[in-house]
Amino acid sequence: MVNKLGIGVIGLGRLGSSYAKYFTGRIAGGTLVAVSDVNETAVATLGAELGISKRYTRYQDLITDDEVDAVVIVSPTSTHKEIVFEAAEHGKPTFCEKPLSISLPEAQEMLRTVEETGVFFQMGFMRRFDKGYLAAKHKIDQGDIGTPVVFKSSSRDPYRPSLEYLDPAHSGGLFIDCGIHDLDLARWFMGEIASVFSIGGTLAYPEMKEIGDIDNAITSLYFTSGALGTIDLSRNGVYGYDIRTEILGTEGTLKIGYLRETPIMVMTKGGITHDTVPYFTERFEQAYITQLQDFVNNVLQSKPPGVTCADGVAALKASAAATLSFKENRPVTI
Amino acid sequence: MVNKLGIGVIGLGRLGSSYAKYFTGRIAGGTLVAVSDVNETAVATLGAELGISKRYTRYQDLITDDEVDAVVIVSPTSTHKEIVFEAAEHGKPTFCEKPLSISLPEAQEMLRTVEETGVFFQMGFMRRFDKGYLAAKHKIDQGDIGTPVVFKSSSRDPYRPSLEYLDPAHSGGLFIDCGIHDLDLARWFMGEIASVFSIGGTLAYPEMKEIGDIDNAITSLYFTSGALGTIDLSRNGVYGYDIRTEILGTEGTLKIGYLRETPIMVMTKGGITHDTVPYFTERFEQAYITQLQDFVNNVLQSKPPGVTCADGVAALKASAAATLSFKENRPVTI
Amino acid sequence: MVNKLGIGVIGLGRLGSSYAKYFTGRIAGGTLVAVSDVNETAVATLGAELGISKRYTRYQDLITDDEVDAVVIVSPTSTHKEIVFEAAEHGKPTFCEKPLSISLPEAQEMLRTVEETGVFFQMGFMRRFDKGYLAAKHKIDQGDIGTPVVFKSSSRDPYRPSLEYLDPAHSGGLFIDCGIHDLDLARWFMGEIASVFSIGGTLAYPEMKEIGDIDNAITSLYFTSGALGTIDLSRNGVYGYDIRTEILGTEGTLKIGYLRETPIMVMTKGGITHDTVPYFTERFEQAYITQLQDFVNNVLQSKPPGVTCADGVAALKASAAATLSFKENRPVTI
Amino acid sequence: MVNKLGIGVIGLGRLGSSYAKYFTGRIAGGTLVAVSDVNETAVATLGAELGISKRYTRYQDLITDDEVDAVVIVSPTSTHKEIVFEAAEHGKPTFCEKPLSISLPEAQEMLRTVEETGVFFQMGFMRRFDKGYLAAKHKIDQGDIGTPVVFKSSSRDPYRPSLEYLDPAHSGGLFIDCGIHDLDLARWFMGEIASVFSIGGTLAYPEMKEIGDIDNAITSLYFTSGALGTIDLSRNGVYGYDIRTEILGTEGTLKIGYLRETPIMVMTKGGITHDTVPYFTERFEQAYITQLQDFVNNVLQSKPPGVTCADGVAALKASAAATLSFKENRPVTI
Repeated sequence: MVNKLGIGVIGLGRLGSSYAKYFTGRIAGGTLVAVSDVNETAVATLGAELGISKRYTRYQDLITDDEVDAVVIVSPTSTHKEIVFEAAEHGKPTFCEKPLSISLPEAQEMLRTVEETGVFFQMGFMRRFDKGYLAAKHKIDQGDIGTPVVFKSSSRDPYRPSLEYLDPAHSGGLFIDCGIHDLDLARWFMGEIASVFSIGGTLAYPEMKEIGDIDNAITSLYFTSGALGTIDLSRNGVYGYDIRTEILGTEGTLKIGYLRETPIMVMTKGGITHDTVPYFTERFEQAYITQLQDFVNNVLQSKPPGVTCADGVAALKASAAATLSFKENRPVTI
Repeated sequence: MVNKLGIGVIGLGRLGSSYAKYFTGRIAGGTLVAVSDVNETAVATLGAELGISKRYTRYQDLITDDEVDAVVIVSPTSTHKEIVFEAAEHGKPTFCEKPLSISLPEAQEMLRTVEETGVFFQMGFMRRFDKGYLAAKHKIDQGDIGTPVVFKSSSRDPYRPSLEYLDPAHSGGLFIDCGIHDLDLARWFMGEIASVFSIGGTLAYPEMKEIGDIDNAITSLYFTSGALGTIDLSRNGVYGYDIRTEILGTEGTLKIGYLRETPIMVMTKGGITHDTVPYFTERFEQAYITQLQDFVNNVLQSKPPGVTCADGVAALKASAAATLSFKENRPVTI
Repeated sequence: MVNKLGIGVIGLGRLGSSYAKYFTGRIAGGTLVAVSDVNETAVATLGAELGISKRYTRYQDLITDDEVDAVVIVSPTSTHKEIVFEAAEHGKPTFCEKPLSISLPEAQEMLRTVEETGVFFQMGFMRRFDKGYLAAKHKIDQGDIGTPVVFKSSSRDPYRPSLEYLDPAHSGGLFIDCGIHDLDLARWFMGEIASVFSIGGTLAYPEMKEIGDIDNAITSLYFTSGALGTIDLSRNGVYGYDIRTEILGTEGTLKIGYLRETPIMVMTKGGITHDTVPYFTERFEQAYITQLQDFVNNVLQSKPPGVTCADGVAALKASAAATLSFKENRPVTI
Repeated sequence: MVNKLGIGVIGLGRLGSSYAKYFTGRIAGGTLVAVSDVNETAVATLGAELGISKRYTRYQDLITDDEVDAVVIVSPTSTHKEIVFEAAEHGKPTFCEKPLSISLPEAQEMLRTVEETGVFFQMGFMRRFDKGYLAAKHKIDQGDIGTPVVFKSSSRDPYRPSLEYLDPAHSGGLFIDCGIHDLDLARWFMGEIASVFSIGGTLAYPEMKEIGDIDNAITSLYFTSGALGTIDLSRNGVYGYDIRTEILGTEGTLKIGYLRETPIMVMTKGGITHDTVPYFTERFEQAYITQLQDFVNNVLQSKPPGVTCADGVAALKASAAATLSFKENRPVTI
């Protein structure tokens, strides 16, 4: 390893392609050296665009490439386990996009492997690296709102993703695919979750019943501290990508989130209008970059990961409990 | 009855005194003719201030006064039943402040009496008369946000009321004293509630444990339509009186509420600051007046009440179910 | 004079009718006893509605009525002088709506009369009684923004008033009719005005050229302290009644104003919309009432007027200078 | 020229260093190949950090370097002329940061050279590339607010720059150094400026009198269309970097600007607080990048410059007129 960490990105979908680009100029100390995807065209196109000659269709070849100092996994969730195992076996520091897995036993198996091999492993939960969430964490830690007692969070997609994408067999369903971000934030801000209770329904897109998933849900949380939480998820935030969190403390409250993307307001007889945040890339681009920068810094400086594999397992455990609670209409202890 | 409805106000606490004043100049077609309170000084003072000579310490005397065409009850909740019975017996149109009662059987008994006697009876839920809530109702009814699918509501007091006031033996506890407003709005906007699940805790004011009540709670709701809801209540909105409701529909969302009371912003190195709404009188004064105006109009024009006794019973039923759910940590069907 | 000040309102147009109503229940210590207007129907109708039997078509009769302890003048500006003279002659405390006059010599004559007779005289500039402006004044006085150095103010009507109303022969033109409020605030917040420079044009309503007035203007101000100011006026604030003032100091800035009238926001694919303030009655109703309350208090307690006749003259002088500056395209010293 | 435009950056101060970095990964089609600065250490440090071996202390060497396809000038304003001349002589496409010069005759000489040599020349006014300003331009062009009639713009620095920087001998004074951005926007949105009138003063930082400059100013504008404008400039926007523009049209108004940098609000008894925009790098970083991207695209695709040298001259002419108007206290025709 010279002074720059050689990065190999596995999985070149929308997010993976962005990650690969970030590693060609925007992340200090890390540089893209290889890309991999099962789709040969995707590898060829992006490789050419970014001037990367090491283009693999087998991730194993990328992992064993000597120039690859660290591996960034952005492939479909179902492939995470075997790639993480392979990277761990070769001792390559690994960044893995959320969720770890949609199967809790599988995730726990991954955690064991990471712990046994001692490989560096960082979990991807980009909201923790957003300027707003970081500032909130800082302000809470320094006591600005007293003791946090209620956690509220909303995640709303601006439109329904494709049924193929949403299929719970791959996505894990609404609580895992979408709610895992809010549940991770819940743990980060408030500590461990003791129990959950979920309600939900297919209320906006009847066609989702075919794939067996819901489009709206609300989860109540008891934290082990006795504090309370509520999370609402929706696929029909048709007015814009709406991600908000509020933490009420004994001395005040704190809100994170915004809806206005461009600094312009238009006021006519028709009303006051401004645009909204289109989707997660616009809302969280800088957080994704900061997250990857943190990964590179941690590897280069031998520091512990910003978000651990155990965090990934814990958030999945809470998501799975929320799913079960909804299905059985009862509180579920974690 | 001449052209102005003669009003008798029973109960001259903070809200009752305000009501009495509103009837001396701000409510067309209604005029204060008599006041009553068990506290002789309160009756004398306010009577003198408003130039009202008919001052009673027994509400029965007010009700049977011939000049009193209609009765407005703002006395302690525990006295509502007997006053409502007395007014019904004398056929006097009645306005009763929320809650009807803290006992569901008692409330149902009141409803039966109202129905059997056929007396005009209007329930006090002033939020339904707030400009913001009215505009929201109108916009939803005309389809601006498509089909409503998620109801969210928050009620936060700016400080803990006195323990004496909060004592559940009188107040009914957090879900009835405070949550009943949100539960009434829930029914008004979304239709009947099918089941509730509540969590809560004494998190900000440990001394509330002595009186057996909690200071923060979250309630999840299934509506009979299948729609979802979440309500969070808090006694520690120390930054200002914070009342917000959001209704998410299939075509958009709609938010009611504001925190800024005075139209001034101050920006210094210390940050951007503005004031907040101090308490319910500042937030809802006009709604209280509009509500009383509606009562007077309905009586004078023989129209049905804007909010019925049955609405009062239904909101109490939901509040009681929320309380039970919290105590037994299980969903409760209504 | 008994314990309530008997008020006579002269001029029952839109604002005068509102003033008359405020004096029947909303202003402590003052009560309407007589109304006057040259329009016989207007007097009869409002008199009946408010239950006032003393209804005059000649203001002289109202002024000399023994039950009238104080006079409130809301008649057309051109009649102010003779009514003020009459009231002064009879020693009746007087409240006069802005502007004093559209003629500076006439206004100065009125000031001399007020000073010579020593009659109590209070000038109507309701913005000084608005909660926002009051809070701003207080914060500036206590040093929250350091030394004020720049004053900015905007007044925008939501639509063009009738050409009849706008005719400069009666209204005095844009700088006097509309700008006088901002110029009064400028003096109140910053001290005396040293010189002005105005630009303007008939840009939105070509038909205003016929009456010889403009629909948009900007005035720059030097204060005698050396501080700076800019005021922009418009008749085409078609999106809502928009009144804003900002004061920039050496330690921060302070903004007064709001556009959102009803506490509701609607967010759909079409954008974020909320309503706006329709017009001055909605924006300043409470300020009007507070202003009249101040008048009554000052008279009853023998305190000096909240806004003096000299303030009325000074604001008119600045408005006239702004008009002259626009016409001659040069800075005008006051 | 191969497929990537080889960029040479001249001047490695704060902004120049940022520009150099943007050309190593964030600007498609352009890549940094050489840097130049009279400060040897600055060249060495940044060259090493960015891995650029071509490091010059004489800008002439950079311009004549064959690998340098295009030149980006970010050096002190006083050096612009000779560098532009040298680049024009060698036919190198040139981007020049604002202002062109602080001397109008010098700027006109540069314009003649650019026109005579036909060299590609793009002027740097980054606000035109900001998402908010771009969206505003688009909405105005499509008629969203009718005909624009009033232009308002504010530029406030969060603190006083050093007296050395502010010295009018180098900076040109407040109207040129700071106001030129607003004057350029004025022309872009509203068309040519017919005349200006300025007032100003040294109101917040008395020490600025020593260098003969002012810290606050207001300029009124007549456009040749008859439309009106007002611009206020301040060095004491101590609460945050505050850049706002409003355009009032016959059918509505449109505001560009924001003060909140991080998506977080904290509400306590002390008030509602959020952070503000620290300075221009935070506010306009993306606009700077978009501007450089536009430059590269235009050169590669042989398109005309997004902002011309003539625009640079016109904005300077207006700034000089504003300065003269202030000094002579009279309107100045352009």
